[in-house]
Amino acid sequence: MTERREWAIALHGGAGSVPPERLAGREQEFLASLEAALRAGADLLRGGASSLDTVEVVVRLLEDDPKFNAGKGAVYTHDGRHELDASIMEGRALRCGAVAAVRTVKNPVTLARRVMEGTPHVFLVGDGAETFARSAGVEVVDPSYFATEERWEELQRELEKAAAGASPTPGMGTVGAVALDRAGDLAAATSTGGRTNKRFGRVGDVPVIGAGTYADNRTCAVSGTGKGEELIRHAAAANVSARIEHRGETLVEAVRAVVHDVLRAGDGGIIAVAADGSIALEWNTETMFRGAADSSGRFEVAIR
Amino acid sequence: MTERREWAIALHGGAGSVPPERLAGREQEFLASLEAALRAGADLLRGGASSLDTVEVVVRLLEDDPKFNAGKGAVYTHDGRHELDASIMEGRALRCGAVAAVRTVKNPVTLARRVMEGTPHVFLVGDGAETFARSAGVEVVDPSYFATEERWEELQRELEKAAAGASPTPGMGTVGAVALDRAGDLAAATSTGGRTNKRFGRVGDVPVIGAGTYADNRTCAVSGTGKGEELIRHAAAANVSARIEHRGETLVEAVRAVVHDVLRAGDGGIIAVAADGSIALEWNTETMFRGAADSSGRFEVAIR
Repeated sequence: MTERREWAIALHGGAGSVPPERLAGREQEFLASLEAALRAGADLLRGGASSLDTVEVVVRLLEDDPKFNAGKGAVYTHDGRHELDASIMEGRALRCGAVAAVRTVKNPVTLARRVMEGTPHVFLVGDGAETFARSAGVEVVDPSYFATEERWEELQRELEKAAAGASPTPGMGTVGAVALDRAGDLAAATSTGGRTNKRFGRVGDVPVIGAGTYADNRTCAVSGTGKGEELIRHAAAANVSARIEHRGETLVEAVRAVVHDVLRAGDGGIIAVAADGSIALEWNTETMFRGAADSSGRFEVAIR
Repeated sequence: MTERREWAIALHGGAGSVPPERLAGREQEFLASLEAALRAGADLLRGGASSLDTVEVVVRLLEDDPKFNAGKGAVYTHDGRHELDASIMEGRALRCGAVAAVRTVKNPVTLARRVMEGTPHVFLVGDGAETFARSAGVEVVDPSYFATEERWEELQRELEKAAAGASPTPGMGTVGAVALDRAGDLAAATSTGGRTNKRFGRVGDVPVIGAGTYADNRTCAVSGTGKGEELIRHAAAANVSARIEHRGETLVEAVRAVVHDVLRAGDGGIIAVAADGSIALEWNTETMFRGAADSSGRFEVAIR
């Protein structure tokens, strides 16, 4: 048993999401980005910021960083566009917000929070979500803002593979953060560009509350990353919370069970923080870009 | 303890969804529609049809019936259109499909099934889902197909209320079905037009797997109806399954707990069937249009 932490935070930048050629020689660059986002979050929590503010800020930093598949740096759809999904949830009143398939919102996580706080709704999709963003004064950008050379080349490779009948590269980039603040409140947020070469308005687990994101002060805050369809069918994030609530598992037991027993090898990873400030980081892919910090002085980022 | 049923089915046509003036003197008409859909489902299961085929057929019948808020008869959005959501899930392999904000698909539940069986994805939204429907040969109709005088008048009343600053009428119409077949497989499906006067691409619980729909052969099949935002934040359908799996509750205990302890009075209702063929029908609204039948000869429909 460890003593209760006053605050704690974990973040991820996707599980198994980076092709080897993309990572080669760039590990330090990725670690520096994770470290900067983690430091920003830890500083906020140390200073007494709410977990909700903190996960939004951390996810915004990762959305703004072109190295991660969310916001700037999001992957391309089949028709060469970007469709972004995000969600956020706070554990005190179980308030939540989610958006899917938005194309001009610079920081989808902030739009998700505005849905949560500024409407009676939870989930807005597509053109309607765009219209709401404009009416709510959330920052919008020209779609060209999301263009990056590297992701464009990824799309070309995926199109060639698809034309050759090869299986798609599992695209599992996502960013997320979970936090416990000094007031004892938990929060979680997740954001993604989805899968390279996605079609037909495909949406993964990220905006599905209970699949990619969940938070409940009585149990934990959870953010997932991986094959979205698998996280949806297993209600992965809600399952972690349910195991703590209904089965009495610890946070680490619950996250391990979902990542290693419920999901299959290669499906993805989960980060979570419990009401006592304990942190779980588990993945069943080769890599999960991740970081964790807490009030005891823990501060670490890693990829493998 | 009752013995295991060889097959069982339950359906709903929404909880608390019909304004008194709409129901007045029309109860027999609604009951006749519920009975016809229930009989079709019971006949299929008795004859050995799969639970997946059965819930799709039953939900299609309710979608085609203009008295219910799904398919033909769906409510109007704020801008006088129709945006339909649906999902379907089977309990053997946890396969699932969902669509949100579609405007020209005659039977959204069938599109959800096509997503499940014809793509590697689970969830398609908006224009992309429409494009997929056309490429998959799913029946599309002119948007005017969904026009009904009664729902148009409902929208006018809601617009007047909104202009007067009054609270919106809780719009909770949804249709759904859950079934156990002779092979021991469970399935669930749900479909809705959402809330009258909805804006901004608002989506409720119906296409959110784990909120409005869930199925797992080890536990149960669930379909919810009510205030979608509440069902999402409590991961209502997955919660019923989790209580059976992790807490060892019976189906009836689990459904009662979610409807009466987790959700609040007025939020909605849940129908579910367990692997042993037991059925639970619980609601915390004034009415829930519902029906239940099984291999022991049970066959009942009710509103109050």
